[in-house]
Amino acid sequence: MPDSIRQSPLYPIINPDSIVFFGASNRFTAMGTNQLNSLLSSGFGGKIYPIHPKETRVLDLKAYPRVRELPEVPDLAVLVLPTHIVPEAMEDCGKQGIKHAIVVSGGFKEVGGKGVELEKKLVMVADRYGMRFLGPNCLGVANPHHNYNVTFLPFEGRQGFIGLASQSGSLITQMFGYLSRFGLGFSSGISVGNEANVDIVDCLKYLAACPHTRVIGLYVETIRRGREFIDLARSIVPHKPIVAFYVGGSEAGKRAGLSHTGALAGPDALYEGVFRQSGVIRAYSIPELFDYCWVLGICPRPAGNRVIVQTHSGGPGAAAADACGRAGLELPSLSEKTLAKIAPMVPPTGSVNNPIDVTFSKNPLDFFDAIPDALLGDEQTDGLLAYFLTPGQSIRRTMTGMGIAEEEIPRLTEKLLDDQSRTMAGLIQKHQKPLVGFTFQSHQDLSIQKLLQYGIPVLPSPERASRAMAALVRYSCMLDKIRSQSLK
Amino acid sequence: MPDSIRQSPLYPIINPDSIVFFGASNRFTAMGTNQLNSLLSSGFGGKIYPIHPKETRVLDLKAYPRVRELPEVPDLAVLVLPTHIVPEAMEDCGKQGIKHAIVVSGGFKEVGGKGVELEKKLVMVADRYGMRFLGPNCLGVANPHHNYNVTFLPFEGRQGFIGLASQSGSLITQMFGYLSRFGLGFSSGISVGNEANVDIVDCLKYLAACPHTRVIGLYVETIRRGREFIDLARSIVPHKPIVAFYVGGSEAGKRAGLSHTGALAGPDALYEGVFRQSGVIRAYSIPELFDYCWVLGICPRPAGNRVIVQTHSGGPGAAAADACGRAGLELPSLSEKTLAKIAPMVPPTGSVNNPIDVTFSKNPLDFFDAIPDALLGDEQTDGLLAYFLTPGQSIRRTMTGMGIAEEEIPRLTEKLLDDQSRTMAGLIQKHQKPLVGFTFQSHQDLSIQKLLQYGIPVLPSPERASRAMAALVRYSCMLDKIRSQSLK
Repeated sequence: MPDSIRQSPLYPIINPDSIVFFGASNRFTAMGTNQLNSLLSSGFGGKIYPIHPKETRVLDLKAYPRVRELPEVPDLAVLVLPTHIVPEAMEDCGKQGIKHAIVVSGGFKEVGGKGVELEKKLVMVADRYGMRFLGPNCLGVANPHHNYNVTFLPFEGRQGFIGLASQSGSLITQMFGYLSRFGLGFSSGISVGNEANVDIVDCLKYLAACPHTRVIGLYVETIRRGREFIDLARSIVPHKPIVAFYVGGSEAGKRAGLSHTGALAGPDALYEGVFRQSGVIRAYSIPELFDYCWVLGICPRPAGNRVIVQTHSGGPGAAAADACGRAGLELPSLSEKTLAKIAPMVPPTGSVNNPIDVTFSKNPLDFFDAIPDALLGDEQTDGLLAYFLTPGQSIRRTMTGMGIAEEEIPRLTEKLLDDQSRTMAGLIQKHQKPLVGFTFQSHQDLSIQKLLQYGIPVLPSPERASRAMAALVRYSCMLDKIRSQSLK
Repeated sequence: MPDSIRQSPLYPIINPDSIVFFGASNRFTAMGTNQLNSLLSSGFGGKIYPIHPKETRVLDLKAYPRVRELPEVPDLAVLVLPTHIVPEAMEDCGKQGIKHAIVVSGGFKEVGGKGVELEKKLVMVADRYGMRFLGPNCLGVANPHHNYNVTFLPFEGRQGFIGLASQSGSLITQMFGYLSRFGLGFSSGISVGNEANVDIVDCLKYLAACPHTRVIGLYVETIRRGREFIDLARSIVPHKPIVAFYVGGSEAGKRAGLSHTGALAGPDALYEGVFRQSGVIRAYSIPELFDYCWVLGICPRPAGNRVIVQTHSGGPGAAAADACGRAGLELPSLSEKTLAKIAPMVPPTGSVNNPIDVTFSKNPLDFFDAIPDALLGDEQTDGLLAYFLTPGQSIRRTMTGMGIAEEEIPRLTEKLLDDQSRTMAGLIQKHQKPLVGFTFQSHQDLSIQKLLQYGIPVLPSPERASRAMAALVRYSCMLDKIRSQSLK
């Protein structure tokens, strides 16, 4: 495990207090302008110095014609310039003692030919001045805990616990909204681009030490320092889970990676081996990458693979059971003791086999309280999958039927949903076992929002919930193995 | 292929003009009350006769104590009664000449023991009077084209083209909102329950003849008439695609099916064989079932498996390419002719390899017009996958930058999105090749809504889009095979 986060070359890149910005102008369609706009709208509290050859003000900030005219040596340079002038601008920065940079500009190694030469030149310049830089051909960084987003899109998310290092900038900047819809966010998102200087191994080191990061996600097209990656990941995994999505396992994916970041992808089995050796949990799609980060970041660790499915709908329950089976989870029967507790709460049309299907239950509140309490309390249970369906319309209909005044319904509905979500979240704490929900409802529905708010992960399908639970189990098994080895 | 839809025993069950309703009351928590409420709120235009032993009015409808006192012989009886009195109520219906029923009540074969006997009795009663019925242990039917929803949840969806026959009622009633978020809906959704009388084979026949149904979806826990299923499906597939999701392939799934609908699941390979023989496209999750129905229902048929990925974001593009590779699709290079058309529109930092990555494109409108026009026009292309990202915030920022007045922005944004979606949809028509979109944005975002509105499917991840495109290709191949065989 690395020690201090401040030792990382990425620290000033991810937490700068002052930035010199190349390539922004008052031309609103320019990429650089957009990125500076993102930075401004993220509420960044540090100094920003735009460099512009002609304009004296850029986006209402005082602009400077040259780096050497800045009033201080900034922590970081951000370059969104035409490719051919990037090395020169870096040289200017180096001369002024700037030690860190983000090179957004593309047109380097990933386009081949002259680009390869230009990238070499860029690296030489940086080395000459002892500079460390992210990129080129990257989208920068977002650190919501520092009110700092220098990527292309405005930040529309929240502070979170997922630290992502990505060979795709889009997977940072275009996921703000996606994650936010699930109540999630980045601790930091780092777009590494062509990794000419700082690479994904450096990011791993930084994120391992980052106090906001509870789980590390990787979008990988290639790993350039294999040995270092494996050794480092192995040292991190006992403390923080790492999830990786690898693109390049198929012939088409390999070609795509090459033109994207100049990545030389290896055969799928090679990467599978790297991940296995290093204890990295592998995800097989982009949504799965974030699903796994989600549950690994907030769920207690299951002691084993015995899972109970709790549902009031047969089909979603059966689909979850089937998906659990395919994902290598076991669905045990309930113990006699638990059965005795559960049976009175399940109508005769339901089922107390696993899945526990309460169907049209006697007391809907049991579903969030007494039933999961009994199930999580069973010694033969390591985790619970629960199907959620509480459509607003039905609650409204029930309350109207109870004679509750129309204007009272929204408040009472919110209170009901709040109470039951809090109760359920309390059970996770009490039993220290994972509970992973799933639903087909919109995650914007208040009933789901409340669950998310109390830290209950709710995935958008039984299959995704089952696979996420299996990822939790895989991580637990790995921890057990590591611990038993270190005891020997 | 069956002839007239009216010959189907399901016709009066799915399109009734008059209904006698057992089991609804003025007690708002009762399941029957909820189902009658759903029916009332669906805007059903036919007659409804509640049966109630004591109440004279139920939910503001005139109630009758007995069937024989009804003023007419209704098309359909809906029974939401305690299990033990169901056979008797059926007998009453039979005596009065009612020929069709939906038995919602559970507690039959699926609970074993006495339930098995009760189900036999129910079947005998129906046979005696020549009655056909859906269920027991089902959730009924939704036919939005008839303003008719008798399932538990209120209808919050739209008329659509997906005909679903499901051994899970939840997969009908709980998917209204899910489908609606994608701009989709059911032509008819049929919950078959225990299939004591009408079964999934009968549903296939009905849906094959249903003019609103463009694609048939099946949620399957067991197939009770294997031979008939295969023969019938084979006759339907050349005219209408069938997609099936099978639960029961794993040990856990099998057990879940048994307690759910008394289904005896077979080994996965057996069902795989049945689907293959019958030309049914198999889906491996519930979302995938609807993804496949979506694209098969609205896309032109691809001539082969050569797909181009169009993106402005490297990572999502590479992920799509990789997923295409894994799904058996080919990603050809562009022809010289197409390359010449495309190159001027792609900046040097982009890529004209496949994926076509326009990065930060020169003219954003090209992405919806000239570029897909050229790509779909390429003779070596059978279909296009396109990544969509048009966040409202960016459009707003650009328009603000152009000096457009704040109050004009919403209208102009809508016009812009409308124009580009219409243009793109026109290209699908022009080239008669499938275009499948994907995005990580919310489907409620106006930019995605507009694409959906013009009939462009937009899936929630590159992997799902790629697999859906592969399903389209699989169906096309099957059609080709069938045609070549019938020519022999």
